[in-house]
Amino acid sequence: MNYIARTEAKVVAVIGAGTIGASWSAWFLARGFRVNASDPSPEGEAFVRRFVANAWPQLVELEIATITLDEALARLVFTADIAEACKDADFVQENAPERIEIKQELLARIDEHLPEGRVIGSSTSGLKASDMQARMARPGRLVVAHPFNPPHLIPLVEIVGGRQTDEAACDWALGFYNDHGKRAIRVRKEVPGHIANRLQAALWREAAHLVSDGVASVSDVDAAITEGPGLRWAIMGPHLTFHLAGGDGGIRHFADHLGPAIKTWWDDLGAPVIDARLTDMLEEGVREEAGGRSTADLAAERDRKLIALLKTVKPGA
Amino acid sequence: MNYIARTEAKVVAVIGAGTIGASWSAWFLARGFRVNASDPSPEGEAFVRRFVANAWPQLVELEIATITLDEALARLVFTADIAEACKDADFVQENAPERIEIKQELLARIDEHLPEGRVIGSSTSGLKASDMQARMARPGRLVVAHPFNPPHLIPLVEIVGGRQTDEAACDWALGFYNDHGKRAIRVRKEVPGHIANRLQAALWREAAHLVSDGVASVSDVDAAITEGPGLRWAIMGPHLTFHLAGGDGGIRHFADHLGPAIKTWWDDLGAPVIDARLTDMLEEGVREEAGGRSTADLAAERDRKLIALLKTVKPGA
Repeated sequence: MNYIARTEAKVVAVIGAGTIGASWSAWFLARGFRVNASDPSPEGEAFVRRFVANAWPQLVELEIATITLDEALARLVFTADIAEACKDADFVQENAPERIEIKQELLARIDEHLPEGRVIGSSTSGLKASDMQARMARPGRLVVAHPFNPPHLIPLVEIVGGRQTDEAACDWALGFYNDHGKRAIRVRKEVPGHIANRLQAALWREAAHLVSDGVASVSDVDAAITEGPGLRWAIMGPHLTFHLAGGDGGIRHFADHLGPAIKTWWDDLGAPVIDARLTDMLEEGVREEAGGRSTADLAAERDRKLIALLKTVKPGA
Repeated sequence: MNYIARTEAKVVAVIGAGTIGASWSAWFLARGFRVNASDPSPEGEAFVRRFVANAWPQLVELEIATITLDEALARLVFTADIAEACKDADFVQENAPERIEIKQELLARIDEHLPEGRVIGSSTSGLKASDMQARMARPGRLVVAHPFNPPHLIPLVEIVGGRQTDEAACDWALGFYNDHGKRAIRVRKEVPGHIANRLQAALWREAAHLVSDGVASVSDVDAAITEGPGLRWAIMGPHLTFHLAGGDGGIRHFADHLGPAIKTWWDDLGAPVIDARLTDMLEEGVREEAGGRSTADLAAERDRKLIALLKTVKPGA
């Protein structure tokens, strides 16, 4: 299959315009695309337009936006009709609910109406492309293109193909996102949670274990990340961090000399159960950590710091 | 046991002045303490003075330094003699090699020469206070006070007592570090790796597994952190992150609704073996990720971004 040149892509259909779809819409508009957004909800269009307007100052501050908000809103077309949204699209970002029957039927319809040579990216966090492509006439063009929330701010996109996916469709999607400043990565096997959510789950498992086992409070475990290794992880991933920890001998020296200590820690990691007792402990601990700050306050604080961090640490991203 | 008022502490003995001890020396000097640094190496004094001078611009930029470099260096006393270093100290930060016999003997000597009412903090990453305090006449004043490297920049300090440690000594150390802008946390059980290194090990286990299993390249796994959840972890720890992910229902809603998905991921996490095959894969992958940047280049880049991040995200820390 031949796909259109990436630079020829001008129109993106965003199918499913809840929080993820609206955030994607903001990002595609910021990068200069026309966006055909589609959602069955009668509130869908108002929701997307409000989301884009709210996100715009962030997109301007991060220099992701290349046009004005008015120009962007003029390029946003909303339709409940999937066929209408797809018929002139050069790429589809699909964000439907995480149920396999819904995805299969929707992707078959998208495939039916989308012109040849166009790739479909699914934002799914939990389903496999191999399962979702079952009813498509042209399954080769479906890739998982999983963002990290919120997609308009966070650079990561995980690209995974299914059994019937063309290698060229994966390559096209990787290049397309990266052309526009995302950091798309290639996941070579379909595994539960792709990569980032698995890593996040691995970290949280031990964090929850330490609380469950009475080793430390929720807020102290959180601080052990944010005031310690978490400061590095916005800058360098775990492998490069340990490469530097190995000095001149790099990660080989690290593996040879600290491997045995790490093995000891690995063997002692916990496997907590998310039951009523642990949920109570977590809720009480988080309440203490929040110290009276509402969820809205905390989210605003996080977003403000996230923007500042992205400006500082990811210039040009 | 009564300990001196924290505000009365003016002199810190830094026993063991390699990289960790020199970094601690820079931090204590920046906070206005006189530092008695001690190390058996004939190069010890020159090493510490050079380290402090190199670190000073960072300490000024982060507003941790309250005095000039000349003032600081005038307050730095170096002696190979442990008794001399401890005799007028108000706190000891011990950073000897990680061997239990060395620590036991050294801590007994420190304890012998340090005045009453003074706490001893050990930087150990791998040993237990319960074991280290075996030969001390006053074991109640020994706490583990484990920094995250480099101590002059990273706020985290993990405080853990041993079986014979006074609760008051732990409280004193917690308050002391926090008075000066550190984020000291209380570890309530002696567990291998304390907290931060366990969490780091948990994350790296899955990262190494994904490489070992061929799911993604070293650089793509690292990017899955630095361009995704790692951006959050400098700002909010895993518990508060998931509290916000739960919306109005907070972490209880999150646990109830996403717990089953997370359980699926937990059950699928890997347990790699650090053998020759994996070490080769990691070394090759890190080389590709470094893209010609030397270890020194990478470390300089990390430190530059770390300073920028600390200024942005941890104002006042």
